[in-house]
Amino acid sequence: MQNKVLLEKLFAAAVSAADPVIEMAKNLPQPPASGRTVVIGAGKASAQMAAALERIWPGALSGVVVTRYGFGCPTQSIEVLEASHPVPDVAGLRAAQRLAAAISDLSEDDLVIALVSGGGSALLPAPPIGLTLEDEIELNKILLSSGAPISAMNVVRKHLSTIKGGRLAALTKARVVTFLVSDIPGDNPAYIASGPTVPDASTRQDALNVVARYRLDLPGAMIDHLRSPLAEAPKPQAPEFARNEHFVIASSGKSLEAAAEVARTHGYDPYILSDSIEGEARDVALVHAAIAREIATKGRPFSKPAVLLSGGETTVSLRGQGGRGGRNGEFALALGLAIEGYDISALAADTDGTDGSESNAGAFVDGTTAQRLRDVDLDGRSLLDRNDSFPAFLALDDIFHTGPTGTNVNDFRAILII
Amino acid sequence: MQNKVLLEKLFAAAVSAADPVIEMAKNLPQPPASGRTVVIGAGKASAQMAAALERIWPGALSGVVVTRYGFGCPTQSIEVLEASHPVPDVAGLRAAQRLAAAISDLSEDDLVIALVSGGGSALLPAPPIGLTLEDEIELNKILLSSGAPISAMNVVRKHLSTIKGGRLAALTKARVVTFLVSDIPGDNPAYIASGPTVPDASTRQDALNVVARYRLDLPGAMIDHLRSPLAEAPKPQAPEFARNEHFVIASSGKSLEAAAEVARTHGYDPYILSDSIEGEARDVALVHAAIAREIATKGRPFSKPAVLLSGGETTVSLRGQGGRGGRNGEFALALGLAIEGYDISALAADTDGTDGSESNAGAFVDGTTAQRLRDVDLDGRSLLDRNDSFPAFLALDDIFHTGPTGTNVNDFRAILII
Repeated sequence: MQNKVLLEKLFAAAVSAADPVIEMAKNLPQPPASGRTVVIGAGKASAQMAAALERIWPGALSGVVVTRYGFGCPTQSIEVLEASHPVPDVAGLRAAQRLAAAISDLSEDDLVIALVSGGGSALLPAPPIGLTLEDEIELNKILLSSGAPISAMNVVRKHLSTIKGGRLAALTKARVVTFLVSDIPGDNPAYIASGPTVPDASTRQDALNVVARYRLDLPGAMIDHLRSPLAEAPKPQAPEFARNEHFVIASSGKSLEAAAEVARTHGYDPYILSDSIEGEARDVALVHAAIAREIATKGRPFSKPAVLLSGGETTVSLRGQGGRGGRNGEFALALGLAIEGYDISALAADTDGTDGSESNAGAFVDGTTAQRLRDVDLDGRSLLDRNDSFPAFLALDDIFHTGPTGTNVNDFRAILII
Repeated sequence: MQNKVLLEKLFAAAVSAADPVIEMAKNLPQPPASGRTVVIGAGKASAQMAAALERIWPGALSGVVVTRYGFGCPTQSIEVLEASHPVPDVAGLRAAQRLAAAISDLSEDDLVIALVSGGGSALLPAPPIGLTLEDEIELNKILLSSGAPISAMNVVRKHLSTIKGGRLAALTKARVVTFLVSDIPGDNPAYIASGPTVPDASTRQDALNVVARYRLDLPGAMIDHLRSPLAEAPKPQAPEFARNEHFVIASSGKSLEAAAEVARTHGYDPYILSDSIEGEARDVALVHAAIAREIATKGRPFSKPAVLLSGGETTVSLRGQGGRGGRNGEFALALGLAIEGYDISALAADTDGTDGSESNAGAFVDGTTAQRLRDVDLDGRSLLDRNDSFPAFLALDDIFHTGPTGTNVNDFRAILII
């Protein structure tokens, strides 16, 4: 199929813009003149961020980060712990204690580098006195089923934790520089992982207001805690944060902007539909296909040649058993079936380099995909119905393979309309 | 909620642009000087089109149209038959015979007005000699599961019918003027209802090519028929069509364009995403919400104030039992939950005035919908999970009610971002 090279370039630009080595290097602090540098971190990308930091840091490093089970990777001097996500467990509780201990006795001459990414909130359970891990698990369950937006959920979490809402950074006298990989629409650094090192201005009264507004049925001990002055989180203007800094080094939005820039240099007008699209992958694909066809046939809402870019995290409801592939393969196959005969080509891939059950990052499709599947005696629709997209792309040689990219800003989709 | 008046105006413009009375009146032929005027028609809108024509036709009318079971409406002099859709039945077979008989003995002085809309293909089964109704049902099943686009399906249907592909019009010496309501992306008049009165240039060899290309497992008698010169359909340049005319009087695309024009006069930049979006309503809503949020927060891919417009036909997979509402209510509720707190308001409605199980056309939502539901002790997410959107909008007084509109160009969605 056509345009693979350009589509690969767009993906490469997106991943490169989210590469922690490159992006941390741009904002790397000076090593302390006379103190130690201690790394802490939490989130799905924390191990990869730690390994990246080790490659570029000019001096000695020590420290400890926590990531999700199975998300660890080899590091030199920074210890990597693993814990449960999205439901916290005892390993997370111990990790929270380890992170706090690693920085609480540092002096003003020392430097803390915090590596924070999505998932860090669940990986660092730290209930205040009088509450238990089970309470925090229950809190998480109540919040996730409440329909409250993440900003509102975070206000409650921050006031029922000894770590979130900047409290982790407040434990140390050292200067704290935070690098963040955002998985959140808008990339507010205080929302990523509930901001263990980045405070915001919310108050425990705000938390109580969220409880009332969303009718959260919290246990009495939690309400009691929120009513106590102990629950108040430190504020951004507090003196202990005065020397701190934070940098969002990677986000879906930034990656899409980087891909857009490359598209523009190749003569395509780029349009970022959204960096936070959710929904069933096949249905999300049908909407993308409909917009692409509208451009192809009627030159609206954008004129050709155009590139549609979007990010976010789709889902796949399993219909069959033993299907191979992931949410981006599923998106790609559904898109391919819906653009048959059109001068449209596309790449859908996971920016971490692994889409679901196989080792590929994603797949390419174009207006000939459906016919080429028939030509090799494959029925695209029944493969899609079994969540079995991988064999389709394997047969067409349209698998997109990258290996682990060292970063993760969720889905990447680029659709060329010529 | 805000902006209801403007949203209603956009819907009114969309429906008005698809009003058969208004649009047929623009292109109404002169009554024949000395002959009769006979009406034939097939499709989901044919009864309403017949009633509309009766209101504006200056002379005497007779004739017969066929529509789907339950889609009839009162008429004066034009008979309305009902038959099965999407699977043809004997009533449809008889209707096809009635339509053919109504025009086959007319003279060159007479006028035929054909009223064609989506669904007309299944409503007019007319297998050629040697094939049966069961064969046509089987053909339909094979085509619908083939994954072939409607253009390819129609090429086959047209060469296995004594009515489709212009053959119905070829039965009469009278001039034939066809009014079409399109349910097809691109609005090709020869594709709507497989073009009983509008021929195209495809050949039986094209039909055989589609059979090979999509590996259609047709019964031997059908293949034999396609190989016979009898299967060849009349061509557009044939003399019997020389005096004929056709007019697409309604389509989703035209309706969205009319709504766009009204939006523009009110100071909003309108963007038509697509006139043919398919997919699960709640997931289609999530993509619309993500694009609207991107506009609201980042001014891309369009700058504010903007109106997103889209059409098509979403689907709803039933999850609960006894839920009230339709696909547009489901879209609206999912959208409302996904735009909480944003300065976004929207209307989703069925252009025929009836969305699913209730008598409403659709519903309004905005950034306050989710909170207002909580304020009246309703849980929007669990209502959505039960396909029970209607009670939500009833409680908020955000039901959109129009009564039957007299036309149908599927879904209409307008989303204002301020």
